[in-house]
Amino acid sequence: MADAVNRQVLLASRPDGAPTLESFRIHDAPMPEAGAGELLVRSLYLSLDPYMRGRMSDRASYADPVPIDGVMGGGSVGQVIAGSAPDIAIGDYVLGHGGWQEFFTAKPSHLRRLDPDMAPLSTALGVLGMPGMTAYCGLLQIGKPKAGDTLVVAAASGPVGGTVGQIGQIMDCRVVGLAGSDEKCAYVTSELGFDECLNHRRPDLKSALAAACPAGIDVYFENVGGHVWDAVYPLLNAFARVPVCGVISRYNANEAPPGPDRMPGLMTDVLIKRLAIRGFIVTDFQGLEGEFLRGMGAWVRDGRVRYREDIVDGIEQIPARMIGLLGGENFGKLLVRTSPDPTR
Amino acid sequence: MADAVNRQVLLASRPDGAPTLESFRIHDAPMPEAGAGELLVRSLYLSLDPYMRGRMSDRASYADPVPIDGVMGGGSVGQVIAGSAPDIAIGDYVLGHGGWQEFFTAKPSHLRRLDPDMAPLSTALGVLGMPGMTAYCGLLQIGKPKAGDTLVVAAASGPVGGTVGQIGQIMDCRVVGLAGSDEKCAYVTSELGFDECLNHRRPDLKSALAAACPAGIDVYFENVGGHVWDAVYPLLNAFARVPVCGVISRYNANEAPPGPDRMPGLMTDVLIKRLAIRGFIVTDFQGLEGEFLRGMGAWVRDGRVRYREDIVDGIEQIPARMIGLLGGENFGKLLVRTSPDPTR
Repeated sequence: MADAVNRQVLLASRPDGAPTLESFRIHDAPMPEAGAGELLVRSLYLSLDPYMRGRMSDRASYADPVPIDGVMGGGSVGQVIAGSAPDIAIGDYVLGHGGWQEFFTAKPSHLRRLDPDMAPLSTALGVLGMPGMTAYCGLLQIGKPKAGDTLVVAAASGPVGGTVGQIGQIMDCRVVGLAGSDEKCAYVTSELGFDECLNHRRPDLKSALAAACPAGIDVYFENVGGHVWDAVYPLLNAFARVPVCGVISRYNANEAPPGPDRMPGLMTDVLIKRLAIRGFIVTDFQGLEGEFLRGMGAWVRDGRVRYREDIVDGIEQIPARMIGLLGGENFGKLLVRTSPDPTR
Repeated sequence: MADAVNRQVLLASRPDGAPTLESFRIHDAPMPEAGAGELLVRSLYLSLDPYMRGRMSDRASYADPVPIDGVMGGGSVGQVIAGSAPDIAIGDYVLGHGGWQEFFTAKPSHLRRLDPDMAPLSTALGVLGMPGMTAYCGLLQIGKPKAGDTLVVAAASGPVGGTVGQIGQIMDCRVVGLAGSDEKCAYVTSELGFDECLNHRRPDLKSALAAACPAGIDVYFENVGGHVWDAVYPLLNAFARVPVCGVISRYNANEAPPGPDRMPGLMTDVLIKRLAIRGFIVTDFQGLEGEFLRGMGAWVRDGRVRYREDIVDGIEQIPARMIGLLGGENFGKLLVRTSPDPTR
């Protein structure tokens, strides 16, 4: 292993608008070595998520940007191959924040041991990881669904939206999804059990959504923005709750779109309809991780919450796939496998 | 009393933009008679409030519009002069929804007896009535102020804003007000004890507000909108709470202002800063009325919450004063006295 390299994906430049292949650079770094009290981890699965677009920009956000020529950050699942720690042994599988590279070192306190007998390892980056917890906390803590409510979910075939809608079904809501292709919509209704799913690219989206929500919308789980929000917004009922989890349609945007300026009208509607609009990120709810893992773990095991993965092999696939992710091309939780998973 | 008339203010036409004198009509109606189980009340104080602008329009809102040639609705305080009911006697003082007229009839269940020894009767329309409860519930239930927070209050010299800021002081917040004249600002700081108050008409509002809020803004109590919101919005801290109580700057507006369209950017900021923006009206919190009356009653009696009234005599004053209210001309809770108050 002395000659092994650690292949990484670096941020080569800050994207102006949508990232391009030139925004990233593949780099063969020397193998890292575990320092005192650290563990060396071989990555198996790297996570690609929409929020990462924010880390590529240096405008103010809830987290610091990735530096130019820095390794892109992100969650990853791997296997410990060197080092020692009280509760984690060599050979153990762990969830960490290794970023887009084949090997990484971490303190044991920054890793969580994974039991491959409880759930497939990759789910720690999906339905039983950040996206699943985002869905769970955002819907239950902010959306506060009640039986009989109409819940509308954007990006319904994605790892967050798909989970939101299934939790909504468990809560006895009418669940209407929005997704970016007819194929995705078919999956959302037939596999995930949503009551309806509409292709958000259809020209009659507004009237179709109104028809799918005859009693209006009580909870809208926002992770798209743009024309999807425009279709949802007039249908919101009095006292509707809008957890704002993402606005992927805006991540590549540099400028405000042309007028008229609808912000004052939105504030008026917030008043008249007593809307509750609240942004969140999953780490705001860190205290709920135990509850989430127990609850969602049970739902996944008994089949009440299903998930879909979109697994790509080879770290060099990342730039093109990340660009595609921001354009809505993936179908299911996007993971890049950098080494064979010994457990399946 | 057989020849007496009941002078009323009717809605003569729906205003297109700001109401004008022609929007209203003074009408001498015959004296109403209390039906079976009803009481006849002589009005003493009629309330004029910004929300009434909404009732003059027929666009969808949280309450039905006043019909053309109908009596404008609103809270009023009066004295029972005829009829009988188990818990209310002739001569008793009551709070009701009599609207803009000198006499009205009501069922006893729609009236609340007032004890003039506990507080001046007129306060039942102000600090101990709808505006006070709006302040109390909106700030505590949605704004959730914590000690050390910076609280910014729009329309700080008004009956809602002035009360919000004083509750914020009780909660150990830094309280910064915004008001429409230097005279109002002086009152807000010297009489109501706000830490600072800025004239929102000053040309350097944005920089002055930033200077007054060196640690950013944690709670913004919105009841103005427009350029005041524009100054506040960039200063909101992560996890800021925005109770939206009113948008008086928009009540006379017919069209969205010119672009760019800032709504998508607002949704992005909601996410990045995890803002919580929530509209409310006081009746959403009806269950808290007992708590409010006990708590606010104690604060008013011990002088921790002060208030100012702007009392005008004569029902015929209403049209001009209502127009002035929407333009920010009143100073304190605006009341129209239609008959001498026997208790002061």
